[in-house]
Amino acid sequence: MTSTYLGIDLGGTNARFGLVAREGTILKRGRFPIRSERGVEPILEDLISRIKDLLSGLVEEERPAGVAVGVAGRVLPDKGTLVSSPNLPGWLNVPLRRRLEEALGLEVRLENDANLYALGEWAAGAGRGLDNLVVLTLGTGVGGGLILDGRLWDGVFGTAAEVGHIVIEPEGRLCGCGGRGCLETIASGTAMARTAREWIEAGKPSAYRGRLAELTTADLFDLARRGDPLARETFARAGWALGLALTGIFNLLGLEGAVVGGGAGAAYEFIYPKMYEEFAGRVFAVDPESVRLTPAALGDDAPLAGAPKLFSAGSR
Amino acid sequence: MTSTYLGIDLGGTNARFGLVAREGTILKRGRFPIRSERGVEPILEDLISRIKDLLSGLVEEERPAGVAVGVAGRVLPDKGTLVSSPNLPGWLNVPLRRRLEEALGLEVRLENDANLYALGEWAAGAGRGLDNLVVLTLGTGVGGGLILDGRLWDGVFGTAAEVGHIVIEPEGRLCGCGGRGCLETIASGTAMARTAREWIEAGKPSAYRGRLAELTTADLFDLARRGDPLARETFARAGWALGLALTGIFNLLGLEGAVVGGGAGAAYEFIYPKMYEEFAGRVFAVDPESVRLTPAALGDDAPLAGAPKLFSAGSR
Repeated sequence: MTSTYLGIDLGGTNARFGLVAREGTILKRGRFPIRSERGVEPILEDLISRIKDLLSGLVEEERPAGVAVGVAGRVLPDKGTLVSSPNLPGWLNVPLRRRLEEALGLEVRLENDANLYALGEWAAGAGRGLDNLVVLTLGTGVGGGLILDGRLWDGVFGTAAEVGHIVIEPEGRLCGCGGRGCLETIASGTAMARTAREWIEAGKPSAYRGRLAELTTADLFDLARRGDPLARETFARAGWALGLALTGIFNLLGLEGAVVGGGAGAAYEFIYPKMYEEFAGRVFAVDPESVRLTPAALGDDAPLAGAPKLFSAGSR
Repeated sequence: MTSTYLGIDLGGTNARFGLVAREGTILKRGRFPIRSERGVEPILEDLISRIKDLLSGLVEEERPAGVAVGVAGRVLPDKGTLVSSPNLPGWLNVPLRRRLEEALGLEVRLENDANLYALGEWAAGAGRGLDNLVVLTLGTGVGGGLILDGRLWDGVFGTAAEVGHIVIEPEGRLCGCGGRGCLETIASGTAMARTAREWIEAGKPSAYRGRLAELTTADLFDLARRGDPLARETFARAGWALGLALTGIFNLLGLEGAVVGGGAGAAYEFIYPKMYEEFAGRVFAVDPESVRLTPAALGDDAPLAGAPKLFSAGSR
C-alpha cells in the first residue's frame, strides 16, 4: 500500500510541492512560478504538466495515494471548487478538484491554505498530539484552522475557522470583511506594520530610520530584538488582541492548545507575554497552565505536511 | 425496548422531573422543593426517594432507559461529578452519577444545565433539524450549549460552550469569572437590569416608577411593550453584544443557527433587531440570511426535553 501524499500550496507567486509521508515528513519538495497574470487555463495546464513530471519521476513505493491542494481564499471543500482567491485574480468558481482528478487519475482534495497549515502543525509540528487545537497564522491577514476531536472542523459551509474575524474592538479599524475591529485589524502582519507607522507618525520615538511606507514586520522584529520600545509595544498590542481572541475561543470550545504561526508569528517571543497575560487573566473554561500555547514549528512547510491528514482526518 | 428517559433539572429551589419520550416529548412532569440549606445528604436521599416513587408508579413500557441530570455550575460529565454549583452551596465534588446509579440501578448521566437546555431545544424546540447549533440562555448569567455535527460539544475538560465569557468590551464591567466585559456583563438578565438602573440613575427618562433596586427584566419587558424608550434601549444594548458574540461564533464555527432563550430571552422581540443588525453587518464566514436565528421554544421544559439526546448524542 502506498503511503505518501502530494501536498500543493498554490499561491499567487509560486506553487510549492511536497511529497509527504503518512506521518507528515516531507520526502521531496519543489516549486515553480505561477505568474498569476497569465490567467486560469495556462496556469492550470502548467500545474498539471508539472505534477505529471513529478509523478513520472517517482518509483512505485513513492507514488502518492492522493493530492491535497491548499489555496488562500474561499474554497468549497465538499465540491472541490475554488470560489475566489485574493492571490489568483480571475479564478472564480474553478472546479479545481475535478480538473486535477481528470488529468492526474488521483484522488484530489481542496482546502483553504490555513486549514492545511493547521493540519500540518497538528500532524508533524507544534500541535502534535493535541486533538483539540486552534492554529492561527499571522500574515497579510489572520487565518486559522480548527482541529476538534481529531478532525478538521470547517463548518457547515466549509468556511469555518475564520479566527481573524472574531471582533476585538467593536468600533475599531475597518476590516477587509466589511466589519470593524476584527482580530485581523490588530494582529495580522499588515495591521502590526500599520500600527507602528501610525505611532511613529504620531511622534512616538523609534529607532526605525527607513521610509515609513516601507516598514514591515520583519523590520519591527529586528528592532524589537535590539530593544526598540515602539516595536515591542506593537507586538504587545497584537498579543493583547490574540489573548482576547483566545479567551473567547477556549471559553467556547475547551481546547487543549493553540499554535501561533504565519510570517509575523516569527515574532512570537514579543507577542507571547501580553497574549498569555490577557488569556491567563481572563479565561474561565480551562486552566491556562494546563493548555499548550506555542509558536508554529514548520514554517512554510506546514501546509505541505498537512496533506496526509486532509485524507485521514479531513472533513470529507 | 423501552423508549423513555428521565430528565432532572436540579436547581437551588426545586428539582424538576420529566419523563421524556425518545423524540423529546414530555409525557409526565413533576417537581419538589430542594431547600438547599439542608445540606448534601438529606437532599440526595430525598431526591433518590422521590425518583424511586416516580419509577414505582410507572408501567413497564414507561420505564426509563436512563436518567439525565442537569445542574448549574461546574460539572465533569466524564466522571459524573458535580464540582460546584452556585445554586447548591456545600455541594463540592459530589459523585452524583455514582450515587444515583447505585441507588436506582439505572444508567445516569450528568451535565451542565445549559448543555441539557441546548439538547432540548435541538431535540424538540427551536433548533430542531439543525445539527450545528449554538444555544444561549440569558438568565442570572449567560449560559450556552453547542451542538457540532449532531453531538453535544463540551470540550476536552467538559466545560466548553461558556458563551457568556466571550469578551465583548475588553475594558468593560468586571465579570464574575474574574475577567472584564464578557458577554454576560452586558446581556444576562442581571446585567440588563443593572444597565437600566444605571441609566435611570444618570437621569435618562423612563416610565419606571418602582423602587430602582427592585427593577427586573420582567419590568423592562413590560415597559418595552408599552413603548418605553429606555427599556427598549436596554434590550438593544444586549442585542448589540449578542450580535458581536454571534459574529465571532459563526466566523469560527460556520454553524446553521442560534437559539436565544433563558428568562430574559422572553424579550427576544426587543433584543433581535440590533442583534441581527450587528451580526448581518459583520459576519463573514456564513450568509446571514441562510442561517436561522430564533427565540427558544420550550421555556423551562428545555433541559428535561434534552434527556434522551444526552444518551444518543451526548459527548460520553
